[in-house]
Amino acid sequence: MTDILVIGAGFAGLACANALQQAGHSVRVLEARDRVGGRVRAASLSGGMVDVGGQWIGAGHDGLRALADAAGVSVTPQYSQGSRLLHLRDDGDRVRRYDGLIPKVSPLALLELQLALRSLARKQRHVDLLAPWRAARADRWDSETVASWARRRFRSREARQVFDIAVRAVLTSEPSALSFLYFLFYCASNDSLETLGSTKGGAQAQVVVGGMTQLAQHLADALPGGVNLGEPARAVRQDANGVEVMTDYSHYRADRVVIAVPPSLQGGIEFTPELPVPRQRLAAQMPMGSVIKAVVAYERPFWRDAGLSGEAVSHTLAFNTVFDASWPVERGGALVGFFDGQSALDYADAAPAVRRQAVLDSLATYFGKAAREPLDYVDYNGLADPWARGGYTGVMGPGIMTTLGLALRAPVGRVHWAGTETATRWCGYIEGALLSGERAAAEVMTAVR
Amino acid sequence: MTDILVIGAGFAGLACANALQQAGHSVRVLEARDRVGGRVRAASLSGGMVDVGGQWIGAGHDGLRALADAAGVSVTPQYSQGSRLLHLRDDGDRVRRYDGLIPKVSPLALLELQLALRSLARKQRHVDLLAPWRAARADRWDSETVASWARRRFRSREARQVFDIAVRAVLTSEPSALSFLYFLFYCASNDSLETLGSTKGGAQAQVVVGGMTQLAQHLADALPGGVNLGEPARAVRQDANGVEVMTDYSHYRADRVVIAVPPSLQGGIEFTPELPVPRQRLAAQMPMGSVIKAVVAYERPFWRDAGLSGEAVSHTLAFNTVFDASWPVERGGALVGFFDGQSALDYADAAPAVRRQAVLDSLATYFGKAAREPLDYVDYNGLADPWARGGYTGVMGPGIMTTLGLALRAPVGRVHWAGTETATRWCGYIEGALLSGERAAAEVMTAVR
Repeated sequence: MTDILVIGAGFAGLACANALQQAGHSVRVLEARDRVGGRVRAASLSGGMVDVGGQWIGAGHDGLRALADAAGVSVTPQYSQGSRLLHLRDDGDRVRRYDGLIPKVSPLALLELQLALRSLARKQRHVDLLAPWRAARADRWDSETVASWARRRFRSREARQVFDIAVRAVLTSEPSALSFLYFLFYCASNDSLETLGSTKGGAQAQVVVGGMTQLAQHLADALPGGVNLGEPARAVRQDANGVEVMTDYSHYRADRVVIAVPPSLQGGIEFTPELPVPRQRLAAQMPMGSVIKAVVAYERPFWRDAGLSGEAVSHTLAFNTVFDASWPVERGGALVGFFDGQSALDYADAAPAVRRQAVLDSLATYFGKAAREPLDYVDYNGLADPWARGGYTGVMGPGIMTTLGLALRAPVGRVHWAGTETATRWCGYIEGALLSGERAAAEVMTAVR
Repeated sequence: MTDILVIGAGFAGLACANALQQAGHSVRVLEARDRVGGRVRAASLSGGMVDVGGQWIGAGHDGLRALADAAGVSVTPQYSQGSRLLHLRDDGDRVRRYDGLIPKVSPLALLELQLALRSLARKQRHVDLLAPWRAARADRWDSETVASWARRRFRSREARQVFDIAVRAVLTSEPSALSFLYFLFYCASNDSLETLGSTKGGAQAQVVVGGMTQLAQHLADALPGGVNLGEPARAVRQDANGVEVMTDYSHYRADRVVIAVPPSLQGGIEFTPELPVPRQRLAAQMPMGSVIKAVVAYERPFWRDAGLSGEAVSHTLAFNTVFDASWPVERGGALVGFFDGQSALDYADAAPAVRRQAVLDSLATYFGKAAREPLDYVDYNGLADPWARGGYTGVMGPGIMTTLGLALRAPVGRVHWAGTETATRWCGYIEGALLSGERAAAEVMTAVR
């Protein structure tokens, strides 16, 4: 018998367990995987460890930054010196090179993009992060997709493509499948669409030397009871006296339970009594985004010789978002990037060699044929991972936020909810996961006091 | 060892099993529930049996009609003599009474409704039922919701409300959560939106005397091996030699398996090897609609005295779609109706007495205070049923049909797919379920030949 059970040892579950533990509660954490960290995971590349899951500390992600300090790991700015590359639909083998933040598109496209960003900024001010469904125009915004909004907004094809690239990179989903209200909420939660897409001063500001998993391990190490790995929760029963969680190996009793896994994975847990229907529906109606992440090692960061930052995005190439991921330069170069949205679905069932080829083809278009000579390659396909089913975050199509949004965080008796999807600030990011875990811990402490 | 395993004993699974069995294959059917019929189910009311699941034989549902004949049960037209009732948002306690098919709204509203229906009819002709994603404007139609299309289309509030009522009644989902491309497909699959909403000549043309479950039982009785009830499939493994299906009680081996349960319930079955990612995503991205069905018994069909057909719809009342469900009149009267879409979600967790009160309140607004004196009441809340999770059918939000539509019917090795969601003609209806089962059986026969 412990006071509190936490299901899921991602950053949300670990932060929650730590907060409860520090407040004097006894806590047990159950984790389905054989490791902690959830959507943060490491892989070996060219003899070093690289992040193939959550990777960046964004500007303003103060909790995560403090955690890095506490763990004694070094943090370094995301490399971003030099020109960026942009590749649009009709560009063929050509890429557009530009400096600064203004992409190389026509003056009309630039104007439209600027006006669109201004419109988003104006609208998102009306979205209360705690209750987006209360916005005066919530019903209207939630009844259209980001794509139908963008179709009305953009006359310039270039502008529309740049916008689509940004949405895809940020939410790993196609604009056609996203609620415009949810999108406004997400932008507001993370300051703005510009912030979400930026390195310096944005969501990709810094990386952890040696990898983000060290921070998860630091959180797990602080728990005297450790984490039960490889032990997925199968069933949760609650009554007036407490909760019971069933796994394949054991039954655990506690006063309360915190579920710190994404909504789409909660459907795999059997609840007795059944959850309220709106809470059940979230599992069926908040799918994960679609993304495959790959890191490629080179002898040298050769793109820097050409004055390139390593940042590249494309509307049509399979590997559609790329950043520099080089180690300290004496160890060689590396590029990290993503198959986002539809592109991830297209390659999710491909053999690893086929994905590798698609990555190298895309990188050769961006950076020239030197990109075809990697030292090593690794990728992580969350879509095929039964404990992920996609990434980075659960997203909402139209008609969900206004009807089910209230159920996202509302405790159900002795069951509380954490996870970055439940975060109001920094939703979708590791920082949001930490904040959600701390919020759930505070809820539990209030309830048991 | 049987030739073919069928998972799910709804009309799709039963039709499939019968077709295979008649072709000389040995078949075993596994069913999670303790009864056959799936989304067709009976309940007791005032000493008789009534349908609280699928109920109607629509015009053109020839397979279902033939099945009724084969089962030796009587079929009778849905009662529809007399005036209809319509209740819009600002109508308060007033209801609009009208005769014929033209609702009592302003001339502008009528004109807009007529033009909208004409526009839908024109567009749906471009939707190939076998491949809706190939329509020239598929991407555009799939990137918007039915609500955003309707917002552009209707200036008249009355027209918009009548349209919303129709969408809700037909797809038990809010227009804001439906893809416009999916909606066009659904209308085309069932002839037209008018047909879907109609009694005479439409989807609610006839009822089965004694209840639709008799037809499921007839199909089940024709299977010499019967149906394994109360035995949900937990896992499906396939390799070069065959398939194996694991339940809580046993393992079954066969040459092939047909999965005849809705996509949203397929996520509960573990597949080895894993299903292709697009097929997995359907389970996460094709939620069931939301509906609660109730039948109320009265001493007499008192609304007929007032010249009313019993048909009533409302934009705002909880019990938003109603039909006459009377027995042969000497046995008394009955009304059947639905909480559709958001209204179903609002009442899904309510106590049965609260739902009953909401039904009687709505009926009293439609038919006067005599409606407050029922003899008996019964409802079925599919949203709270773990083997239903909603009804009538799995639906698609925007961005799903064009990206995952191809995966809906494509066999995965030895695994085939049935269920009304996979039907091209009469999708969403029992007739579609029968057709899908026969199509899957034909696929299997071709494959094993």
